[in-house]
Amino acid sequence: MPSVALLTDLYELTMAYGYWRSGKSDDEAVFHLFFRENPFDGGYTVAAGLETAIGYLDALRFADDDLDYLRSLQLFDDDFLAVLRDFRFTCDVDAIPEGTVVFPNEPLVRVRGPIVQAQLVESALLNVVNFQSLIATKASRVTEAARGDVVLDFGLRRAQGMDGALSASRAAYIGGCHATSNVLAGARYGIPVRGTHAHSWVMSFPTEREAFETWSRVMSKNSVLLVDTYDTLDGVRHAIETGKTLQGIRLDSGDLLALSIAARRMLDEAGLEKVTIAASNELDEHIIADLKQKGARIDVWGVGTRLITAYDQPALGGVYKLTAIKPRGGAWEHKIKLSEQALKISNPGILQVRRFDAHDLIWDELSSVGAAALGSAARPGAGAPIRLPAGSGDDLLVPIYRAGKRVYDPPPLAEVRRRREEQLARFDAGIKRFDHPDSYPVELEPQLADLKARLIAVARGVAA
Amino acid sequence: MPSVALLTDLYELTMAYGYWRSGKSDDEAVFHLFFRENPFDGGYTVAAGLETAIGYLDALRFADDDLDYLRSLQLFDDDFLAVLRDFRFTCDVDAIPEGTVVFPNEPLVRVRGPIVQAQLVESALLNVVNFQSLIATKASRVTEAARGDVVLDFGLRRAQGMDGALSASRAAYIGGCHATSNVLAGARYGIPVRGTHAHSWVMSFPTEREAFETWSRVMSKNSVLLVDTYDTLDGVRHAIETGKTLQGIRLDSGDLLALSIAARRMLDEAGLEKVTIAASNELDEHIIADLKQKGARIDVWGVGTRLITAYDQPALGGVYKLTAIKPRGGAWEHKIKLSEQALKISNPGILQVRRFDAHDLIWDELSSVGAAALGSAARPGAGAPIRLPAGSGDDLLVPIYRAGKRVYDPPPLAEVRRRREEQLARFDAGIKRFDHPDSYPVELEPQLADLKARLIAVARGVAA
Repeated sequence: MPSVALLTDLYELTMAYGYWRSGKSDDEAVFHLFFRENPFDGGYTVAAGLETAIGYLDALRFADDDLDYLRSLQLFDDDFLAVLRDFRFTCDVDAIPEGTVVFPNEPLVRVRGPIVQAQLVESALLNVVNFQSLIATKASRVTEAARGDVVLDFGLRRAQGMDGALSASRAAYIGGCHATSNVLAGARYGIPVRGTHAHSWVMSFPTEREAFETWSRVMSKNSVLLVDTYDTLDGVRHAIETGKTLQGIRLDSGDLLALSIAARRMLDEAGLEKVTIAASNELDEHIIADLKQKGARIDVWGVGTRLITAYDQPALGGVYKLTAIKPRGGAWEHKIKLSEQALKISNPGILQVRRFDAHDLIWDELSSVGAAALGSAARPGAGAPIRLPAGSGDDLLVPIYRAGKRVYDPPPLAEVRRRREEQLARFDAGIKRFDHPDSYPVELEPQLADLKARLIAVARGVAA
Repeated sequence: MPSVALLTDLYELTMAYGYWRSGKSDDEAVFHLFFRENPFDGGYTVAAGLETAIGYLDALRFADDDLDYLRSLQLFDDDFLAVLRDFRFTCDVDAIPEGTVVFPNEPLVRVRGPIVQAQLVESALLNVVNFQSLIATKASRVTEAARGDVVLDFGLRRAQGMDGALSASRAAYIGGCHATSNVLAGARYGIPVRGTHAHSWVMSFPTEREAFETWSRVMSKNSVLLVDTYDTLDGVRHAIETGKTLQGIRLDSGDLLALSIAARRMLDEAGLEKVTIAASNELDEHIIADLKQKGARIDVWGVGTRLITAYDQPALGGVYKLTAIKPRGGAWEHKIKLSEQALKISNPGILQVRRFDAHDLIWDELSSVGAAALGSAARPGAGAPIRLPAGSGDDLLVPIYRAGKRVYDPPPLAEVRRRREEQLARFDAGIKRFDHPDSYPVELEPQLADLKARLIAVARGVAA
């Protein structure tokens, strides 16, 4: 069985081979993983996926089956395959912890080390961090819309593959969902699981009444009844007839506003004020916000397809860019990639993000006080060391690996989930708005901005 | 480690428990997996995922870790957990082979057996078949747009999780893609792999020229150069300077129409008529068709995000519906679920699809000649056995499991890929159109249609 080491675009391996063949194996490089726009036209993003990425990096070895396969491609010579066989990840990795609220252009992951290695992990890191951050952000929006109501992830059946479901359920929990229907996600990640019955349960009995009575007898501790198999309000009536074991009903079709109000009235008139009403059926943050604003009497929201696939924007466009390089025996050089769109020109250096009270600052450890700590005298910016505003603000990227050794233990998922909640509460409501959210200020440290401008001018000169 | 047996919505397990507790374990049921609308506003769908689904069914056992976890939920009693421990899948499964062109309401998978079992596999079957059919269909549209040009799946970094990438690469190959960048998908499924280098390769050298010369020396058999790191047409010039080893160039930004025409002219003037031009950057079937129609000189299309996530419709809404039930000692009963939307009322029975020259027919084995073969005298439709048009047409669903024993070996992936291609070629161009495609006629066998109408009337009566 080939291993996760092969979960990479072929070009990472052909480039690794190229670096090795051309004597650049010992060049050091720095790559940053970042995205350029918040998803869903939103005002923020929730970082997620780091623990999964760590699992990948911890396991990164080329097994014999991997090498046999690579040999079969007839692209690589045996000496290089021997290098891969002995491959050990020795990079430094820094990252922003999961559950942190982040913004465009802020590096979520920074990898520094031999260029062959730092390049090789690109595809897998992007895959994991892009997807889980996307879903954590979608879930955060959905749970914000639900304003404290219980939100359940019901998406397994529409997710993009088995892991598309599992890692999405994980990210949805980080983003604020309370539970999932996916039992394996519950077992693997410790997420609470929830679920009741399907229409087929009702259809398998001669009458809905009999189906409900049987369910409430068997599930006396957990009787939530799906009421819309035939006629929703008849279903509510039949559910009420099951009496005191009834804990909740679920609506899965029709006009959820009108039906929930009618169902609430029927339940209350029967003295079942404590029976909850759950709703599902193509819900997302916009529909939930609208239903709540109009007075729907829904206590529990089951969100499927539109959460688990981030239906309205199913990919976060995160990228992984080379931003500095240090040839063997040389000094660090800042790197940028040009683009006709100024927005797409990456920030050079070895970057860190400092969060202040009402803005973030992206700064470069190479051209600042940090350079000394990095053991490098190189200051391509040639200015004086920058002075960051003292005494306030935290740097968001924390050490994850040092020389390939892991120095970070991922916190429990529940803690990650709390971090998202606590962080988001501290931000102004303007960035959380669904329509035309405010843009949170993320500034380039001025000396870094100057350096970037000079590098662009130089590169345009070179290219011209 | 919990096993794939837990890859299910909790309600499948609570329903299984309910069936078992209420003495219905031995009731037989039939479920069908089908979708109601072609994705992407298209005229057809490509069935995919069956081999993956077989892998799931073959492995379906509850391990001790699974049972420990389920016990911890305090929802199930020990006797039921013992039933799960001894669980063996004993259903009959029929399915439409992968690569088959299919249409709305046609059952892709049919599961018949003890209701507990047939219910339990719902979530995983939907997950796998929904997603892979979605991506196979998207890939089919993209490769149709490319009219024989090479199409590469480049989506790993934007896919929805690791398996979201792997199973999508598999489905994309079924749908007609020629190769993938995902090495693990290549190793696991035997899909050809392709890839060159990234911008970071160029940026890691002092000049683009040096980067290209090094690449063409190291990759003398496979020198495809990415030319847009700084200025695209300068890049083409630098690529041409590498001389005879050059096999191709890749454009990854800018105006692909103008740049490909200019690059082609430059290559041709240099006597490099055989050097191919690849393009990538947010491509999909519409952009490819448009570029080709306008005369772009692109030979190879690298398609990423919009293929691997089916960006414009990231989920196929397949469902899994109970359509007939046979209580212990009783006869088969047809089942339908009502809905306010006529389109959403499922077809009852034990269904099969017969494909004729220019239409498909959904027929019911219960109310036809097939009933005898199934060993059942029940004909709830009460009419004479139906006579299907003789001597023409094939039934699309084939036996996969009989009494839990697998009777089908999935064909090699290359054969599945050919099936899609051969099948699609036989259909009228009208169903393949991107805008307002023709609707392929899928008819209900008349006796089945009558039966359905009667069941709807009865159910509405019951509900009223």
